[in-house]
Amino acid sequence: MLDIKNGIVELQMGSGGRANDMLIKEVFLSSFPQNPLPYTCNDQAVFDNFNSGKIAFTTDSHIVKPLFFRGGDIGTLAVNGTVNDLAVGGAKPLYLSASFIIAEGFPLSDLKKIAESMGKAAEKAGVFIVTGDTKVVDKSSCDGLFINTAGVGFVPKDVDLSATKVTAGDSVIVSGFLGQHETVIMSQREGMGFDVDLSSDCAALNTLTADILAAGGDKVKCMRDLTRGGLAAALNEIAAVCGASMLLDENKIPVLPQVKAVCDALGLDALNFANEGKLVVFVKPDVKDKVLAAMRKNPLGENAEIIGEVITSEWQPEVIINNENGGKRLLEWAYGDYLPRIC
Amino acid sequence: MLDIKNGIVELQMGSGGRANDMLIKEVFLSSFPQNPLPYTCNDQAVFDNFNSGKIAFTTDSHIVKPLFFRGGDIGTLAVNGTVNDLAVGGAKPLYLSASFIIAEGFPLSDLKKIAESMGKAAEKAGVFIVTGDTKVVDKSSCDGLFINTAGVGFVPKDVDLSATKVTAGDSVIVSGFLGQHETVIMSQREGMGFDVDLSSDCAALNTLTADILAAGGDKVKCMRDLTRGGLAAALNEIAAVCGASMLLDENKIPVLPQVKAVCDALGLDALNFANEGKLVVFVKPDVKDKVLAAMRKNPLGENAEIIGEVITSEWQPEVIINNENGGKRLLEWAYGDYLPRIC
Repeated sequence: MLDIKNGIVELQMGSGGRANDMLIKEVFLSSFPQNPLPYTCNDQAVFDNFNSGKIAFTTDSHIVKPLFFRGGDIGTLAVNGTVNDLAVGGAKPLYLSASFIIAEGFPLSDLKKIAESMGKAAEKAGVFIVTGDTKVVDKSSCDGLFINTAGVGFVPKDVDLSATKVTAGDSVIVSGFLGQHETVIMSQREGMGFDVDLSSDCAALNTLTADILAAGGDKVKCMRDLTRGGLAAALNEIAAVCGASMLLDENKIPVLPQVKAVCDALGLDALNFANEGKLVVFVKPDVKDKVLAAMRKNPLGENAEIIGEVITSEWQPEVIINNENGGKRLLEWAYGDYLPRIC
Repeated sequence: MLDIKNGIVELQMGSGGRANDMLIKEVFLSSFPQNPLPYTCNDQAVFDNFNSGKIAFTTDSHIVKPLFFRGGDIGTLAVNGTVNDLAVGGAKPLYLSASFIIAEGFPLSDLKKIAESMGKAAEKAGVFIVTGDTKVVDKSSCDGLFINTAGVGFVPKDVDLSATKVTAGDSVIVSGFLGQHETVIMSQREGMGFDVDLSSDCAALNTLTADILAAGGDKVKCMRDLTRGGLAAALNEIAAVCGASMLLDENKIPVLPQVKAVCDALGLDALNFANEGKLVVFVKPDVKDKVLAAMRKNPLGENAEIIGEVITSEWQPEVIINNENGGKRLLEWAYGDYLPRIC
């Protein structure tokens, strides 16, 4: 038995030996929702096929710093991030993998706490963690914990979402207040600490994406969760792919006053800030009100707003904002992020 | 355009911005086999369902040190490792994800070389890298490069392999010389360097597993690739799961003289050494010769041997070896590995 309260992760726990087996069983398997697939110690999960439709597959590595933050931790983020990447592809998320790179000496109690967060997040999102891996590296090679999750989901036959389908005339809807996650991480980052009365928006969006698809049907063109780079990166990337521009109304873009205050103080733009529980959706204009109403009925979309529309590019695809004073500005695709390691 | 010859990885290349987009396109996508799924900049791959059968899903993070070794590099390992975890589950490996955690300052030329190794390995194994992620962390947080791959494969309806199916009477076959990969890594590890005329056995085993299944049909019970912990870990883990013991013949276990010499010099056992291109297979005894013949026809199994059989446990599941002098010894499941970071 491991001493989870006082013990630390040893190099040997990342081996192929018994130490590794104890770590897997006592820290991870005991924290995750009971798996519908039997745990047979095989190195892969095998599950029944979905009979029809398509399969969605995605991955993300998580390196957030600090590991614990207001509103979640690296475990919450690792589960919800991959659930969301599947969900915005129109998939019903089903199975996740979880792979851990852990620094020798990492407290087992923290690891257990993070595993339990993953278990709770998985249960809430209705997914199962069915396969995994653990590696342990020396302290000087990794500064704590990195978690990779990959995910598999089922996409119904008639759902076909892609940035390539976005065209002039489409409405642009965001699901709520922007910039919360990055503001919280920034406020808790060593050497940058400042007070802000806010939690990360980290959440699984699969009920919201299901509501959007139920309301908008095949008139839903594309969804994207607004992680690294925020709304600015997502819209510029989609504009580049579909070849159209976007015209947004600054008054309509939801940003909380606490986030706006931080941005004003630091000279930053909340539209570049990462979110972990927000998405943008492109729909044909004739279903925009119906989709908006459906989103607002879901607590994850209660502050949703139609923020603009897709327009024909005059010269090259760009994202234009009509600002509060009647002027225009370009929302640029930044070269990088304000802050590294936000997710 | 990135300066791949002289440039280094910048923190910004792990962002949601343009720098990240350049890294993905110029280093990774250009090195991987042309993807049958269109690259649409969505955060997930969506592919057609397999119509029948089951789905296998696996993941592994790779932290090998050094990154480049005789016979391969971390990229070769990352592709083949996941291909093999699918293959030994009876799956035809189809799609991989690739997720990179890169230290700031890592040479772009090395990254490109590794991406090209992944491309070549994927092509050889007949799989496609369809989705991915890149994160960049500061130098003090990661000592080079970690790669996670996850994989999805198709399992025909009638294939059902599991350690739980192994029973007394089954024959135990290994596919070739054991201990090569760990011997090579050990010989090239900083501070341990010694000369040995050997390359890693790193290879994709999916043609070999297909040959085994074609020859043995539903009389193939379980396959396992012999990575961390080697033959000793695999057999002890399977014995614990199936509740039976194993009796092996030391004379039959294939170990190269170079590997044996290193083991003798260091007082180590090659049966605990990691392999990256070897597997063990459990079959009903009436098909053992047919399966062995099929394995030997494949270059990946040309040195395959029947090394023993599964027997009823007298007391608790254990792995017993009849040694060359007519004596017996227990092959123990080590607490950890000899060497960290071998894969």
